[in-house]
Amino acid sequence: MSTVFEFTIDAECSESWARAGTLRTPHGTIRTPIFMPVGTQATVKSVSPEELKAVGAQIILSNTYHLMLRPGSQLIDTFGGLHSFMHWDGPILTDSGGFQVWSLGHLRKLNEDGVTFKSHLDGSYHTLTPERVMQIEAEIGADIILPLDICAPYPCPPQEARKAMEQTHRWEERALIEKERQRPEQALFGIVQGAFEPELRSESARIIGSMPFTGFSIGGLSVGEPKATMWEMLRYVTPELPREKPRHLLGVGSPEDLVMGVGLGMDMFDCVLPTRVARHGGLFTRSGRISIKAARYRTATGPIEEGCDCYTCRNYSAAYVHHLLRAEEQLYYRLGTIHNLRFMLRLAAELREAIITGNYIAYRDEFLERYKPASEAVREQQREKWKAAARARQAQG
Amino acid sequence: MSTVFEFTIDAECSESWARAGTLRTPHGTIRTPIFMPVGTQATVKSVSPEELKAVGAQIILSNTYHLMLRPGSQLIDTFGGLHSFMHWDGPILTDSGGFQVWSLGHLRKLNEDGVTFKSHLDGSYHTLTPERVMQIEAEIGADIILPLDICAPYPCPPQEARKAMEQTHRWEERALIEKERQRPEQALFGIVQGAFEPELRSESARIIGSMPFTGFSIGGLSVGEPKATMWEMLRYVTPELPREKPRHLLGVGSPEDLVMGVGLGMDMFDCVLPTRVARHGGLFTRSGRISIKAARYRTATGPIEEGCDCYTCRNYSAAYVHHLLRAEEQLYYRLGTIHNLRFMLRLAAELREAIITGNYIAYRDEFLERYKPASEAVREQQREKWKAAARARQAQG
Repeated sequence: MSTVFEFTIDAECSESWARAGTLRTPHGTIRTPIFMPVGTQATVKSVSPEELKAVGAQIILSNTYHLMLRPGSQLIDTFGGLHSFMHWDGPILTDSGGFQVWSLGHLRKLNEDGVTFKSHLDGSYHTLTPERVMQIEAEIGADIILPLDICAPYPCPPQEARKAMEQTHRWEERALIEKERQRPEQALFGIVQGAFEPELRSESARIIGSMPFTGFSIGGLSVGEPKATMWEMLRYVTPELPREKPRHLLGVGSPEDLVMGVGLGMDMFDCVLPTRVARHGGLFTRSGRISIKAARYRTATGPIEEGCDCYTCRNYSAAYVHHLLRAEEQLYYRLGTIHNLRFMLRLAAELREAIITGNYIAYRDEFLERYKPASEAVREQQREKWKAAARARQAQG
Repeated sequence: MSTVFEFTIDAECSESWARAGTLRTPHGTIRTPIFMPVGTQATVKSVSPEELKAVGAQIILSNTYHLMLRPGSQLIDTFGGLHSFMHWDGPILTDSGGFQVWSLGHLRKLNEDGVTFKSHLDGSYHTLTPERVMQIEAEIGADIILPLDICAPYPCPPQEARKAMEQTHRWEERALIEKERQRPEQALFGIVQGAFEPELRSESARIIGSMPFTGFSIGGLSVGEPKATMWEMLRYVTPELPREKPRHLLGVGSPEDLVMGVGLGMDMFDCVLPTRVARHGGLFTRSGRISIKAARYRTATGPIEEGCDCYTCRNYSAAYVHHLLRAEEQLYYRLGTIHNLRFMLRLAAELREAIITGNYIAYRDEFLERYKPASEAVREQQREKWKAAARARQAQG
């Protein structure tokens, strides 16, 4: 396994924890820092694998929870695994399903062995144990897999946070053993938990960091806490993790998160945000997120962003993209998604370049000065809207 | 104009009215018989212009009614016309809006001058006259344009059918004059009406066929009548039209319609059916239409159709396409649409080849023997479902 997965550090920032690395996997080489588009149901919503390649995607993330429920991991296995099932020949990372059990599943029943939940699709009952998750992820066949964990809510009482963390640690040890029985050639990343307690975060990173994982994912962040709290937690985590292994910030984030997270030692990022906000009309530019639905774009002859090299900006006016969204045409969702993904992947490439040339701090400061992020209030509103929409869909289903 | 638009007949069938032709337009050459994908709102639903090229599309149709309401023909004009606005550099045909006024508009008020209707989008009032339609189509800037007409319903009392036809004829004369004032370089096709009266169909074809149109569109068919009635009407129309000009069967059709229509002298076809049924899971194969949603495709490792050269069949299993539709993933709509459009365009190319090699009749009979079309009952059910969905959307809007 160590011959297939190899992480080398190409450059390090002298004034922050930022580093540029190269991660070799059985399906190709990843240059870090990197953003991983999310393909929840074996497809990155509204774009094709060829379009993912074209925007510069080097690895995608898919969700074990969704795939196990539909189409089922056994079915994916009979098709030779997720790569061949979804026609994506680059690296794939699958999460463990733990987060979705907490955020989507109903009637969770947790014990030492694992967790039982009710499917959000059809109400059927399923049990996940650390061992079962390794079996499912073996059938899905991603390059990088994650172990079952418990994602504590925000806020969370310290005793509960400790209990969840310790349970997660015991589950991760079981996962390490089971993975070797299943598909030892897959790379298992350990997950750091510890909620919002500095000492728990340090402890979790120290314990998990000492186990023979190929890399580490920082879980339990971006679950509703202020951004400052999230960044504070990373300050306790990164120093405890082995320098020579890749670090993945789970479920984060926005353009500004990528820029900040890199400085706190993170190498890999994934989030539905760039694709989800695109579908709602929110498109990234160097100055911040714009709403392409706004009336001022009706007659805009230029591209969404001058100088952007994405397929959308090279071929279509902002007015046409505006028209497609107003008319609720499917091509809009694709063009918007391509633009935002390209933005994230160009940003990752520029961060890498800045680290290599010793300019990360200057790049970060310039970016953050120019980029106007969505305020906490706007983000909270959006979350509520999405939750309501998800509840409505569930009620229909 | 005659130097830009040129129609030559490359081959004719000796046992039917089928012919293979070449139509030169300012945006490229079209080999007939041809199927024209429909891009109602300046986009063929869920596919990109590059994908249209890849499936073999040589010309697309767009709807004047929809474009005039959103984004507006003047706006399209300021972007240099529809080709540049939607990033499609091949030939475009726009219809006149007449059909949609009848099928979508509310509160129509018809007089000798034109027709007033209420927009299905926002309830605003609009008036179309033969002259206004020429102005709008000049702003949209398609290669081939159609004049305002009246589409009689099915069934229709003979006196009403005659009244509508004669009104249409007078409007078409006005359109010919106005077109020369607007953009003489656009090709105006005449529309043949006459409802379901054999003598009216002959008369309309004779009158319109003698006017200086670049080609002819047969309107008012496929509005609910049995297929046999539609084919019967063409038997009265085709012999009256000049042999040396292209003939377009408006709003038709299905694979079997294409095969039959060619034998009745039609060169060009357009219809939303292949793209619309694809979005509902209906995919074309040589044996007939299948429903990819059916449980039997859950584990189907082969493509939708063995031997199909479309992007979808070359890269994805039927099981994956089935999964995407079940999960309501946007990529499904694209993959299904690409498959059906490629089916229609390969069918058109094969019909052309059969005509050129003198095998049209054999090709037609073999195709129809093998292809199981949707029954009239199924078609009627689908129409009702779509109408209900359209009403629901309208009520929401």
